[in-house]
Amino acid sequence: MSDLSPFEFRIHSRDGRARTAHFATPHGTVQTPMFMPVGTQGSVKGISADELLEIKSQMILGNTYHLMLRPGAEMVAAHGGLPGFTAYPGPFLTDSGGFQVMSLGHMRKITEEGVVFKSHLDGSPIHLTPERSIEVQQLLGADVMMAFDECPPFPAEERYIKASLERTVRWLERCLTFKTRDDQALFAIVQGGIHPHLRQQSLDATLPFSTPGFAIGGLAVGESKEEMFLAVAFTAQRLPENKPRYLMGVGHPEDLVAGIALGVDMFDCVYPTRTGRFGYALTDDGRINMNSAAPRQQLIPIDADCDCYACTHHTRAYLAHLVKAEEMLAPRLLSLHNLRYLHRLVERARAAIEAGEFQAWATEWGERYFKRPSNADGSAQALPEWFARAVRGEG
Amino acid sequence: MSDLSPFEFRIHSRDGRARTAHFATPHGTVQTPMFMPVGTQGSVKGISADELLEIKSQMILGNTYHLMLRPGAEMVAAHGGLPGFTAYPGPFLTDSGGFQVMSLGHMRKITEEGVVFKSHLDGSPIHLTPERSIEVQQLLGADVMMAFDECPPFPAEERYIKASLERTVRWLERCLTFKTRDDQALFAIVQGGIHPHLRQQSLDATLPFSTPGFAIGGLAVGESKEEMFLAVAFTAQRLPENKPRYLMGVGHPEDLVAGIALGVDMFDCVYPTRTGRFGYALTDDGRINMNSAAPRQQLIPIDADCDCYACTHHTRAYLAHLVKAEEMLAPRLLSLHNLRYLHRLVERARAAIEAGEFQAWATEWGERYFKRPSNADGSAQALPEWFARAVRGEG
Repeated sequence: MSDLSPFEFRIHSRDGRARTAHFATPHGTVQTPMFMPVGTQGSVKGISADELLEIKSQMILGNTYHLMLRPGAEMVAAHGGLPGFTAYPGPFLTDSGGFQVMSLGHMRKITEEGVVFKSHLDGSPIHLTPERSIEVQQLLGADVMMAFDECPPFPAEERYIKASLERTVRWLERCLTFKTRDDQALFAIVQGGIHPHLRQQSLDATLPFSTPGFAIGGLAVGESKEEMFLAVAFTAQRLPENKPRYLMGVGHPEDLVAGIALGVDMFDCVYPTRTGRFGYALTDDGRINMNSAAPRQQLIPIDADCDCYACTHHTRAYLAHLVKAEEMLAPRLLSLHNLRYLHRLVERARAAIEAGEFQAWATEWGERYFKRPSNADGSAQALPEWFARAVRGEG
Repeated sequence: MSDLSPFEFRIHSRDGRARTAHFATPHGTVQTPMFMPVGTQGSVKGISADELLEIKSQMILGNTYHLMLRPGAEMVAAHGGLPGFTAYPGPFLTDSGGFQVMSLGHMRKITEEGVVFKSHLDGSPIHLTPERSIEVQQLLGADVMMAFDECPPFPAEERYIKASLERTVRWLERCLTFKTRDDQALFAIVQGGIHPHLRQQSLDATLPFSTPGFAIGGLAVGESKEEMFLAVAFTAQRLPENKPRYLMGVGHPEDLVAGIALGVDMFDCVYPTRTGRFGYALTDDGRINMNSAAPRQQLIPIDADCDCYACTHHTRAYLAHLVKAEEMLAPRLLSLHNLRYLHRLVERARAAIEAGEFQAWATEWGERYFKRPSNADGSAQALPEWFARAVRGEG
């Protein structure tokens, strides 16, 4: 795919609303759909840069809020940006800091100018504006930067969401005006909560900026799966066909399958590493609790089909022993497996799309994952309605 | 070295009292002097089996006390012993459990039969005898097992040390009588604290058993470096020339250099991984405190001469950031570096011995490590007396 221009997104195949594509960045071309591991503080928790390559990670997410506070964007820039700082040689994406200001910042105050908040580290006052967010993201040097937006809490009044999304559009304009580097793409973010008319308003105001990609923001903040995927379905199909669509902060395995069905191309979430640190292992049969008694007796890998280091070297009994003994190797190996599980999941989804069998594959995967046995007459029990609807490509 | 018989120890070269050798085990031939990483609970904390191979670890130590309590020796045996359980394919050495009973067991009671103590995990009463220690060690399947001994506390009365070492000899006889597997060697342990006449008594009673190797036990428990290395010097030179000598629970970098000078072949210690978890990095210039401010500004590796993953991929600034941010990758990478540092240290010592330059190399290393600049007239300031004496091969 060396014939792609920078930030070109070329669709390779379609199956219903799902699609596979290549997306070109200065640090390499990635295949979508893809899941992006989260390296909040310049490290995907417990995982080395070489391991990220080994498990076929493609793009890593860095958090602007955390990195600007510590070690400071200038220190990352002194290393030549995130690839030099972290030793991961592939593409990065940085968020704008907006979401973390909402979730972690204390005493925050939002004005038209931007946000003032107290650092969660030392309480010092921090100003974050669209301009400062871009300045920091340019220092961090990620291939993809995100526009500085406000992600309203859930639930929020419609009036608030409307005012917020309108301000987010004005902030987008300021971000684009301030941005100087042409080796970095800036993605706009569509807001609007779970309200179709507000999503539509955000789309109408955002799409004219024609950024190289668009994110669906403001979800996975407390709404139900039904609400979330209705909003995803509504928004994704109104985004340009020839640009990547990024569902921010999602997801769990079932969210990836449902999101891909609805035409989403990019995902990120701390879930695989966080649940790994808590002792859980992701599989097609659901999540294994390695803290429980059963795995401590099982001389089989977590997942016989998985090619990760943990699955090709260790038994559940060994890994469950490490969890019980509180050995550091346990969260490390479970995080590695869980990341590889999500990467393999999207690889399988891509193969199914290219074979024109995505809906059948996703349904079969769901039947097993949600543990829906067949009825007595041989017919399958119903999958969760939101999942079944998404897999059918319905909003 | 495929012509060696099992547990044969063949000396390759000598320089003063220091020597290099090959030692054959069923899981491969190792080169001595060597440092053995400690995998207390079936894992060298934070480090994968593949990484142990990558940093050229040769033999890994497992703790009988911890493994018999959790997951239980039978579970390790069900994996085919420690190599199958941990996925480290090379040789292992297990201790006897005696030392941990002293340091971790509650309410212990020592009789001629053995030791009764309460588990540090759940308070349940555990009986450990020479026979049970060997039974467990045979289930763990290490290439080298250690005789069940008592390691008296420091300081202890001479009368107590004498009674204890005499019982340790009787226990050694019971271990050897009980042992059945001929693919495992059993090393005897010489006790006697820091008292030459008690060391001599222990040597006189222990050497006739002609085990394939001998350990110097009962040190690094609170005595001074002077006292420790006088005891090492006294004991090592009275051990058979053609058998490996193992200084248990040691050491720090300076201890390895001093011990090698006195003819020690094997070392183990939790120090490199423990100090790594606390944020310290070992170098020829001493220990770098990565929690301090200076390394956070240094865009250089911990050690430019080191070939470990941390030193070939990351700056001090990045690693110090991870320490400050309490990222799991920090203890992992610092532990890896520290283990590799000790492995490289013994590799350099071996090269110096084979070149007939050990004393000069060790002196130069010590001058730098202990930061002894030259005097105004160009003569070197004195190294610590215990170190200088050991390097000269003096007791």
